[in-house]
Amino acid sequence: MSKNYAVILAGGRGERFWPQSRAARPKHLLPIVGDRPMVAQTVTRLAGLAPPEQIFILTNTEHVAAIRAACPEVPSGQIIGEPVGRDTAPAAALAAMLVRRRDPEGVVALLAADAAIHDDAGFRATLSSAFAAAAKQDYIFTIGIPPAFAATAYGYLCRGKKLGESEGRPWFKVDKFVEKPDHSTAERYLKEGGYLWNACMFVVRANVLESAFNQYAPDIARGMKELDGRLNQGVPQAEALAAVYPGLTKISLDYAVMEKSANVAVFEAAFDWDDVGEWPALVRHAQADAAGNVVKGDSALHEARGNIVVGEPGHLVALLGVDDLVVVQTPDATLVCPKSRAQELKKLLQVVAAKKNSTHWL
Amino acid sequence: MSKNYAVILAGGRGERFWPQSRAARPKHLLPIVGDRPMVAQTVTRLAGLAPPEQIFILTNTEHVAAIRAACPEVPSGQIIGEPVGRDTAPAAALAAMLVRRRDPEGVVALLAADAAIHDDAGFRATLSSAFAAAAKQDYIFTIGIPPAFAATAYGYLCRGKKLGESEGRPWFKVDKFVEKPDHSTAERYLKEGGYLWNACMFVVRANVLESAFNQYAPDIARGMKELDGRLNQGVPQAEALAAVYPGLTKISLDYAVMEKSANVAVFEAAFDWDDVGEWPALVRHAQADAAGNVVKGDSALHEARGNIVVGEPGHLVALLGVDDLVVVQTPDATLVCPKSRAQELKKLLQVVAAKKNSTHWL
Repeated sequence: MSKNYAVILAGGRGERFWPQSRAARPKHLLPIVGDRPMVAQTVTRLAGLAPPEQIFILTNTEHVAAIRAACPEVPSGQIIGEPVGRDTAPAAALAAMLVRRRDPEGVVALLAADAAIHDDAGFRATLSSAFAAAAKQDYIFTIGIPPAFAATAYGYLCRGKKLGESEGRPWFKVDKFVEKPDHSTAERYLKEGGYLWNACMFVVRANVLESAFNQYAPDIARGMKELDGRLNQGVPQAEALAAVYPGLTKISLDYAVMEKSANVAVFEAAFDWDDVGEWPALVRHAQADAAGNVVKGDSALHEARGNIVVGEPGHLVALLGVDDLVVVQTPDATLVCPKSRAQELKKLLQVVAAKKNSTHWL
Repeated sequence: MSKNYAVILAGGRGERFWPQSRAARPKHLLPIVGDRPMVAQTVTRLAGLAPPEQIFILTNTEHVAAIRAACPEVPSGQIIGEPVGRDTAPAAALAAMLVRRRDPEGVVALLAADAAIHDDAGFRATLSSAFAAAAKQDYIFTIGIPPAFAATAYGYLCRGKKLGESEGRPWFKVDKFVEKPDHSTAERYLKEGGYLWNACMFVVRANVLESAFNQYAPDIARGMKELDGRLNQGVPQAEALAAVYPGLTKISLDYAVMEKSANVAVFEAAFDWDDVGEWPALVRHAQADAAGNVVKGDSALHEARGNIVVGEPGHLVALLGVDDLVVVQTPDATLVCPKSRAQELKKLLQVVAAKKNSTHWL
C-alpha cells in the first residue's frame, strides 16, 4: 500500500494581519485563529493521516528557523526554504519530486499552512477518502468547500458528474475552475449549486502530479529534472535549490496545471474551512459580545459596537463611542482602521515603508 | 517693598488625559503641552516675578514626591500635600496663611499648575502690574482672559468701570462672575464685549485675602486660625494639616469668596491662556499636518483626517481611513474615541474601574 505524505505550503508576507504579522512573522507563525501558530495546527490536524516524518513544509528561507521551532515534531530537514518565492506551481512540483524521491508510489496532500479549520475529524475523514482514491486513480483530487456564503475573495470550481466513490464518499469531475467572482455572480453560484470554493487543497500521487507538470508546465518540469539530477549527484539540497529555483517561472498551480488538466476530480469537504484573509474574518471564529465586539486581550468598551479588538495580555485597549473598527495593539505598533477598509492595509504599509528606519515595523 | 509670592494649586485626578494621565500622574505632571511637566513650566514662567524660594505648591499628599522631582528648584518644604482635597477655597486660605506667616505684607499670586501659556513675557508683564497694584490696594485682583472663542467650558467675569492703573496697565471693577454659559450665551458675551474668561488666577495681598475669608467664609477662616495656632505651638506642618484640613468645607474660591466680595478687580491678560481641558484641546497647541492631524510620536497615516494621535516614541501608531479620532497609546493602555466624545472619558474610566484588578490602569 502506498504511503500518505503531506506538503504544507507556508508562504505569506505578513501583510494582511499587520501589525501582529510582520515580514519575519507571517500569519502561519501566529495564533490568529486558535491558540497555537497556524502552521503547527496544520501539522497536528494531519495526525492519523500522515505522521510527522512524512510531512514536508516549504517556506521562505528566512522563516525556516521559526517554523522548525513551531513544529518540532517535523524532521528539520523536511522544513525547506525556497531561495526565492515562485508561487505555488514550482512549490507543488518540488513537493511532487521530494515525495517521489522518497516513495515512487507516494500520495501527497498539498495544504496551505494558515487556513482555519475547526472540524479536524471531518478534515481527516475527507482527506482519508482522497488519499485512498489517489492511491488508485490517476487523478488530481482537490477538496472543494461547500460555500458558506457568497464569498468574492475565493475562486470557485464547478462540480461535474460523479466519477466514483472512495471509503463511501463520492468524487466528481471538475468541469472548470472559475476566478474570484463579483458579488452577484457569487450569489448566483450559491443559488445554482454545484459550485465549491477552491481551497487550493490537493491530494494526488506524486508521479501523477509529475506527469501533469511534464504535460502542462514542461519548463517547470525541466527545472525539476535538473534539480533531481543535482540531488542524485550528491549536491546538498539548499545548494541545488539555490542553483535551480530562481530560474523557474513564477506561476500559480491553478494556472499552470489545474485549469488545463483533464483529470482533475473533487471531493466535497465534510469540514469547515476559512483562509482568514484579513482582520475582519476573525468575527467568523470568535464569540462576539452583546454589542458585536470581538475582543482578544484586555479591553474596556463604552458605547462601542461591532469592533475587532486585539491586544497583548495586560495591555488595556479602551474604546469609547466607536463602531466597526479594527484596533490591533502590539508592543511596537498599533493599527486603527474601519473593518470595511482592512483590505487596504497594503496601502498603509507603503506609507510605513516610506518612513525613515521603518523596517523593524514591517 | 512687599515681596511677591506664588502659590501653585496642583490638584487634578488624572482623568481627562487618560491613559497618559493617571491617578498617580495627573496632567500637571505631564508635558501635555510643551516638553516639560506643566507644573514645572508654571514655576519657570514665574522667573523674574517670584524666585523659587517664594513659591509654594499645594497638591495631594500622593503627588508631593513627584512634584518635588519635577520642580527641584522649589524648596521641598514648600511643596505641601493636602491630606484630603477640599477644592480651591481652603487651598487659597492656606496659601494666604502660609504667605502671611512668612511675610505679613506679602503679595501672593494663586495660579493653576496645568494651564498652557505660551507668551511668558506677556504673562510676566501682566502679573508684574498686578503684583504692584496688590501691594498698594486692598483689592483681590484677578487676571481675566480676553476670550479667543465662544467657550462654554469656562466661567466668565464681567468687566466694570476702570478703577486705576498699575505700571501703565488699567484695572477694572469686576461687576459679576458668571457660570459656564451655553453656546448662544457665550456668543453673545463675545459680541457684546466686556466679558473675560475666569482663569481662576488671582493676585492679592495675603492679609487682604485673609480678611475676605474672615468676612465671607468664616468657617474656613476659623479652621485656618486653628491651624495657625498649632503651627505656632510647634506642631509639624503635616500633622497640623492632618488634624484641621479634613474638617474644612469643600467649596471653590469663586463660590466662597469671589462672587460675594465687593473689592474684586481685574487686569486683562496680555497673554494667551488655555486650561487644556481634554485631548481635543491639543489642536490649539500643535501644528497640524495638511489633513488636520495632530501627531505626537511616530505615526503612519493613510486617508486619515483631523485625528489627534499621541504615542510613545518608537511606537508606531498607524491609522487607515479614520477621521476625527483621538488615539492615545501608552505602554499599558490605549484609548480610541471620537474627538467629539472625549469629554465622556469619565464614563469609560468607570468601565475600567469595574474591571477586576484594574487599579494599575487608573
